[in-house]
Amino acid sequence: MKMNDYIELVNDKLDEFIQIEYPNSIFKSMKYTVTLPGKRLRPVMCLETCRMLGGDIEKAIPTACAIEMLHAQTLIHDDLPCMDNDDYRRGKPSNHKVFGEAIAVLAGDALLTFAPQIISKYSENLPSSTIIRILNEYFHYAGARGVIAGQVVDIESENLDLTDLKAKEERLEYLHTHKTSDLFQLAMRTGAIIADANDEKLIAITEFAKIFGLAFQIADDILDEISSFEQMGKTLGKDKAEGKLTYVTLYGLEEAKCKLSCLFEKCYDIIHKHGIKSEIFEEIITKIRQKAGI
Amino acid sequence: MKMNDYIELVNDKLDEFIQIEYPNSIFKSMKYTVTLPGKRLRPVMCLETCRMLGGDIEKAIPTACAIEMLHAQTLIHDDLPCMDNDDYRRGKPSNHKVFGEAIAVLAGDALLTFAPQIISKYSENLPSSTIIRILNEYFHYAGARGVIAGQVVDIESENLDLTDLKAKEERLEYLHTHKTSDLFQLAMRTGAIIADANDEKLIAITEFAKIFGLAFQIADDILDEISSFEQMGKTLGKDKAEGKLTYVTLYGLEEAKCKLSCLFEKCYDIIHKHGIKSEIFEEIITKIRQKAGI
Repeated sequence: MKMNDYIELVNDKLDEFIQIEYPNSIFKSMKYTVTLPGKRLRPVMCLETCRMLGGDIEKAIPTACAIEMLHAQTLIHDDLPCMDNDDYRRGKPSNHKVFGEAIAVLAGDALLTFAPQIISKYSENLPSSTIIRILNEYFHYAGARGVIAGQVVDIESENLDLTDLKAKEERLEYLHTHKTSDLFQLAMRTGAIIADANDEKLIAITEFAKIFGLAFQIADDILDEISSFEQMGKTLGKDKAEGKLTYVTLYGLEEAKCKLSCLFEKCYDIIHKHGIKSEIFEEIITKIRQKAGI
Repeated sequence: MKMNDYIELVNDKLDEFIQIEYPNSIFKSMKYTVTLPGKRLRPVMCLETCRMLGGDIEKAIPTACAIEMLHAQTLIHDDLPCMDNDDYRRGKPSNHKVFGEAIAVLAGDALLTFAPQIISKYSENLPSSTIIRILNEYFHYAGARGVIAGQVVDIESENLDLTDLKAKEERLEYLHTHKTSDLFQLAMRTGAIIADANDEKLIAITEFAKIFGLAFQIADDILDEISSFEQMGKTLGKDKAEGKLTYVTLYGLEEAKCKLSCLFEKCYDIIHKHGIKSEIFEEIITKIRQKAGI
């Protein structure tokens, strides 16, 4: 399958999985952010990991969509006034701007259990033990030891005056390993588990996802510096204005680009070492490199 | 087991299940609300349902504790300024007053996946199919078709001017069936499922929990009218001050008490009809009746 086929498949399924029921406002709010136009990177990477390791992508569709729902959940809550206070997301008003704060909080809450429900409800072609394994991955990466740990440390870094470069680097890496890499790890690991990958492959895939996530975040920091609102669909330059610690504020633009290149090289090394071939991953990496101007 | 034995068991396990890890603030925030002194009604009812239907309560402990964590999650998010804006809960400052709004939102989020993780992690003495069944119950009742539906309709009722008594009654029943009964249904249904109850018993238990939840809510509305802050540990009289629709504002105090009595009679009818005996349930109902002055 081509990139666009994957995206279309995911979009169709997301639309199908979230039907508007009573009370309408909560389902509309959930669906609003989940179906905002996006690259669907996480579900595509879940499906492609499953395929490239010899699995049946049909079996991975509910999990792939659940991960996109979880991603939307993090966006809804991160945009809240008490968090990052962002009025725009993917070029549209953020969830709380459309539905109000109370419904936005509840829509995020609802997605956190709606997503794994999709996994358990529509994975009848997977053994019970595999479903539980996937749910455990979901619980881990969605929780206080996963993506939430990243958001917590991000919030707590705001007024922290770290003078030591090493301490700053470690903090940034911890933060983004969780805030960004964790959902890629969840996507690729569950894809691999559905494909019945052995432990060696699973470890390699996890390492790939971790490094890819950090690279993705560096690219995001670079784009925050060099792009326009029209290109990104969200408020830009906030990081700099708020004196926030990013890869660009830490290393400067040029060195951040070098780091990005270097991380993507590591991604390729892992793939090649394990004899894995994926045009989709190459396409994704190439596109990110181009956007970031390297 | 006596009521106090159950409560002690639940408290010990809750304390054990939530260890403080890095980043500390999020785990402390989760643990703060989960371990606030409380009656532990939902976990006790889960364990007691399991016992009275012939099950092994040891097997129900992780699920019982997970439901208390979910209950705490709803309290944390309901107390937020954008929701009910309550500064006190169980006599202590509410979560966001201690940890700030951002951490309170994230602690609620974290509990939503931490709770089912406890179920899947510590239920190794249950078959995979039973674990999935319990998780599905959890996903349903925690989500947009469960407790969240109740909170949404509660919020949307605030500025609604219903003139028709019938419409008001229906709205109140829908609201509290979800906002209050759903967690009791989850508690008793999962207790019954762990005890391997047949469908007939499961339906009876579900009906009991639904009616018990409504009675519990009427009692809460009555206490909001007749109690003091010291007795309840939360801000009282807000419902009346805000012109909120409650059983007391709808029927008046005396008729609300009659309704309460009548619902508890129905609860006893269900238990007796199915030959179920539980001193614990009788004790719980007697205590609520006494507090509400009937």
